[in-house]
Amino acid sequence: MPSRREFSRTSLAALGAAALGRWPVIERHAHQGVRINGDRLNAHLKALSAFGANPQGGVSRVAYSEYDRLGREYVMGLMREAGLTVTVDTAGNIHGARAGSDPAKKPLWFGSHVDSVPEGGNYDGPVGSLGAIEVAQTLKERGITTRHPINVVIFQNEEGGTVGSRAIVGELHEADLDLGTRSGKTIRSGITFIGGNVPRLAEAQRKAGDVAAYIELHIEQGGNLDKEQLNIGVVEGIVGIGWWDVTIEGFANHAGTTAMNDRRDAMLAFARYTDMVNRVVTSEPGRQVGTVGMVMAFPGARNVIPGKVQCSLELRDLDNAKITRLFERVRAECVKIGEATGTTFAFQSTHQSASAMCDTGIMSTIAAQARGLGLSHRQMPSGAGHDAQHMAKVCPSAMIFVPSIKGISHAPQEFSTPQDITNGANVLLQTVLALDAK
Amino acid sequence: MPSRREFSRTSLAALGAAALGRWPVIERHAHQGVRINGDRLNAHLKALSAFGANPQGGVSRVAYSEYDRLGREYVMGLMREAGLTVTVDTAGNIHGARAGSDPAKKPLWFGSHVDSVPEGGNYDGPVGSLGAIEVAQTLKERGITTRHPINVVIFQNEEGGTVGSRAIVGELHEADLDLGTRSGKTIRSGITFIGGNVPRLAEAQRKAGDVAAYIELHIEQGGNLDKEQLNIGVVEGIVGIGWWDVTIEGFANHAGTTAMNDRRDAMLAFARYTDMVNRVVTSEPGRQVGTVGMVMAFPGARNVIPGKVQCSLELRDLDNAKITRLFERVRAECVKIGEATGTTFAFQSTHQSASAMCDTGIMSTIAAQARGLGLSHRQMPSGAGHDAQHMAKVCPSAMIFVPSIKGISHAPQEFSTPQDITNGANVLLQTVLALDAK
Repeated sequence: MPSRREFSRTSLAALGAAALGRWPVIERHAHQGVRINGDRLNAHLKALSAFGANPQGGVSRVAYSEYDRLGREYVMGLMREAGLTVTVDTAGNIHGARAGSDPAKKPLWFGSHVDSVPEGGNYDGPVGSLGAIEVAQTLKERGITTRHPINVVIFQNEEGGTVGSRAIVGELHEADLDLGTRSGKTIRSGITFIGGNVPRLAEAQRKAGDVAAYIELHIEQGGNLDKEQLNIGVVEGIVGIGWWDVTIEGFANHAGTTAMNDRRDAMLAFARYTDMVNRVVTSEPGRQVGTVGMVMAFPGARNVIPGKVQCSLELRDLDNAKITRLFERVRAECVKIGEATGTTFAFQSTHQSASAMCDTGIMSTIAAQARGLGLSHRQMPSGAGHDAQHMAKVCPSAMIFVPSIKGISHAPQEFSTPQDITNGANVLLQTVLALDAK
Repeated sequence: MPSRREFSRTSLAALGAAALGRWPVIERHAHQGVRINGDRLNAHLKALSAFGANPQGGVSRVAYSEYDRLGREYVMGLMREAGLTVTVDTAGNIHGARAGSDPAKKPLWFGSHVDSVPEGGNYDGPVGSLGAIEVAQTLKERGITTRHPINVVIFQNEEGGTVGSRAIVGELHEADLDLGTRSGKTIRSGITFIGGNVPRLAEAQRKAGDVAAYIELHIEQGGNLDKEQLNIGVVEGIVGIGWWDVTIEGFANHAGTTAMNDRRDAMLAFARYTDMVNRVVTSEPGRQVGTVGMVMAFPGARNVIPGKVQCSLELRDLDNAKITRLFERVRAECVKIGEATGTTFAFQSTHQSASAMCDTGIMSTIAAQARGLGLSHRQMPSGAGHDAQHMAKVCPSAMIFVPSIKGISHAPQEFSTPQDITNGANVLLQTVLALDAK
């Protein structure tokens, strides 16, 4: 299956520069004046926060825990109130479905997740999940029947590796099922715990063409919208990520008796490597990021020249080719650093995830709806991973970001204002209605 | 008490540039043709190596262990065979004394240590200890009565912090006695174990004027003599050492969502710090060394920008003022690095030991004896610490280095050739005889 990026290139070639996405841009539609109920949405968010609430704020509602199960039950109750028909698929994802008026149309999916990291916040996942249910509730209350079926989806175990959405696209493999999780359960037993059916896991899969589009509302986990005082982020795509383990070998020696020019100092080589990674990553325009987050020096004594350093390299960008190009530049520079310091560098690739591009037609539609609501907005990549990156493999997908104060996430201090959450859900509602008008 | 360095300056001012040491330079003496028995010395070294021998080579004969006690007993036996009167002082140091012919003379001390690091080698300490006993044995066999009394000294627990020599100069304090050691015993119980008498520890002290001179034969723990194919190193002094703990504070953040120019990356600051330390230390002539041997990054995940780094700084030089000057340059550069990276640096001094200069008169005498024996030699600092650095506080002191292959030390691969060991002991013998001719 071609990646979204490859698909976008095909579209671009086939349709010309005026139509970059699979979806057309829809500026206006019949229900321009409809709004969600922000007070209700924020009350639901507060109620969900009780499941796994921590004394210091935030929640620990890790996937497959009892709090996760209780949170999911609460959410399914809200779905039923919103007139949705609730099912749990064999992978444990929750679906809330509502029929459309046109039997030829494939369903429009929107949603997010309700599991959290340990000692996480109340907004990463719940904003998009409860926002999606609020959209369904609003459609019900306003008596709006869409042409497409709609499907509110709550993916299971997003924080533990986007497990539910990987199952949807057929990328949850047998070997993954026996991995442990923060709940103490394996993924296999966790799926059973939340009502899935592991032997029939394949039934949860969707293939290209099964879903009309997927839209996810989420907090921006960077601080860009907050810093720039913008209301809405129109996500261009979810960055690709490359992880490498880097081993630098020098020669451990006595720090007192070994002259400076006789050293093969792995720490000095590490220092030049880390500074070089920063220089290479910032040397070309764009929003690529590169990080050295881990380091261990051996033997690790203050009076011994380190003979070995183990460290990490992470590169992220929307353009997978740029990640590859930056990595090759880093590796080439390391040869020079090694020659200058009497050390050698070895790189071991430990994880590579391709970037997932959002559908440009839906992006423009989201921007148009934000404008229609009087909300400021800009395009931005998502530096963090989301379920949407997997959904992009089977349908045109897009994400709507709302500000997170100071960009704090995965922490009790995570916070988005009620107004920002209301704004985001209104953009989601208007986008669903616009797409339905296609 | 003034440090040796301060004393040297006083001498220089008082005596003029022609006489730098307290001892005159003695080129020739009455026993120029006497030689030690190299085969016997090397056989003794091999025998001592049995006490604590490891299967992979080398020894673990840590101070206060049963192997240490057995090794000391073996050494005391050799001393008695060499006609020395053996005593253990209240600090646990072994002394082997022989009277001189001139009652007005203070004793000439020479010796080293026989304890090892865990999984150490067979040469660091034993070469100087057994070399000193071999000198005494040779004097006995040749019927040479020196004018000075001689005293072969085997300092206890050199590897655990020059404990025995610190006791000699009154720098082993009450609080030190309760520190643990690699033997499992405290220093206090260790001293008792090897025959010392802790309540009477002060009786082991020597004050300025009690000892005529101290000479120590030792392997060079750098690889300079081996690399340059020289026979003898004439030690100029033992370097001063400064240790600092360095804490770099930035701000931990998501490696995917935080733009490069929004980061306060403590790892990047650490990298620039480490490279800068190398640049500053090598920017002026001399044999100073600077090492960053330890690093810990927090939180230490590959996808989180480090918010904090803890690391070390070690600076060594014969000139204490140079250590201070280099440190101030490093600290000033850190302010600039902090400004550029949005981080702060804090330095905590954890250990400072002043350098100890060797007596220049004895140094020249050592060089003259090496020449007389047809041995190549050069002056060099000792980058490692030795008991001689403490003895220099109470008497003119000097050290004779012999090559250690590839400079490997504190490891089973530590090795000096029998010929190099024989050469070193002959230089020690000739130096003792020359000093005695004063």
